[in-house]
Amino acid sequence: MSNCIFCDIIAGNSEASFVLRDDRVGVFMDIQPINPGHMLVVPITHAAYLSDLDVDTGAHMFRVAQNLAGALRKSRLMCEGVNLFLADGEAAFQDVFHVHLHVIPRFDGDGFGLTFPEQYYRIPSRAELARAANQIRKNLTPNNIE
Amino acid sequence: MSNCIFCDIIAGNSEASFVLRDDRVGVFMDIQPINPGHMLVVPITHAAYLSDLDVDTGAHMFRVAQNLAGALRKSRLMCEGVNLFLADGEAAFQDVFHVHLHVIPRFDGDGFGLTFPEQYYRIPSRAELARAANQIRKNLTPNNIE
Repeated sequence: MSNCIFCDIIAGNSEASFVLRDDRVGVFMDIQPINPGHMLVVPITHAAYLSDLDVDTGAHMFRVAQNLAGALRKSRLMCEGVNLFLADGEAAFQDVFHVHLHVIPRFDGDGFGLTFPEQYYRIPSRAELARAANQIRKNLTPNNIE
Repeated sequence: MSNCIFCDIIAGNSEASFVLRDDRVGVFMDIQPINPGHMLVVPITHAAYLSDLDVDTGAHMFRVAQNLAGALRKSRLMCEGVNLFLADGEAAFQDVFHVHLHVIPRFDGDGFGLTFPEQYYRIPSRAELARAANQIRKNLTPNNIE
């Protein structure tokens, strides 16, 4: 047993209900689903944060999530829409420190919701948006963008 | 002008504060940010839903989002964590019907939150999880998984 529950699941040392597994990711059911059918896409190789995740594996996680979203919509599970959600860091609600992408089936009136900060209702000026864009742009890793 | 605001932005016919643009995606600031630095990763080619999105473009969106998350953390913007969020379908809170991946900087006490359905607090049995996994597995598109 490691000290990472997702590594234990991937290694077959902890129980999980798998949907699929390939050479880069495992997909299994969230044991506390927001709605029935809620899954986690988890890289095989341990990566605590997005910054530790191999970019090709990240890209593959999304590819798999897109397939899972289509399967949810075709399945008999209640699914009128799908949310993809990833929490990177404790301040962003990450609870297990092994990267995971939530794939969540949704339907009208399911009771899941978002609550917004007060500042959400104050629309920023174009100058504020441009300053934020500039802050981010100058910190990009250039060779990460093709 | 088209009848899609994101197509208009990508075409340069509507104002936006861009962070980057390559041959497959544009990234610009959300005009109603959850926190300052909140961005949208948007495919250049119109796709209303995930099911309409070219899978390589989807994979690229995640690759770009990972770079953006790193840039947010290095920037002077308040960022202790990052959420990636995608809403596919009205029932999942999609509001603009052109696929977009939210990249949201987060910090402790920022006021953003999730509210959960009642059933979230009822832990499902292993048999229920296995049935859901099976429902999804049999509806996957095999050639979409490498």
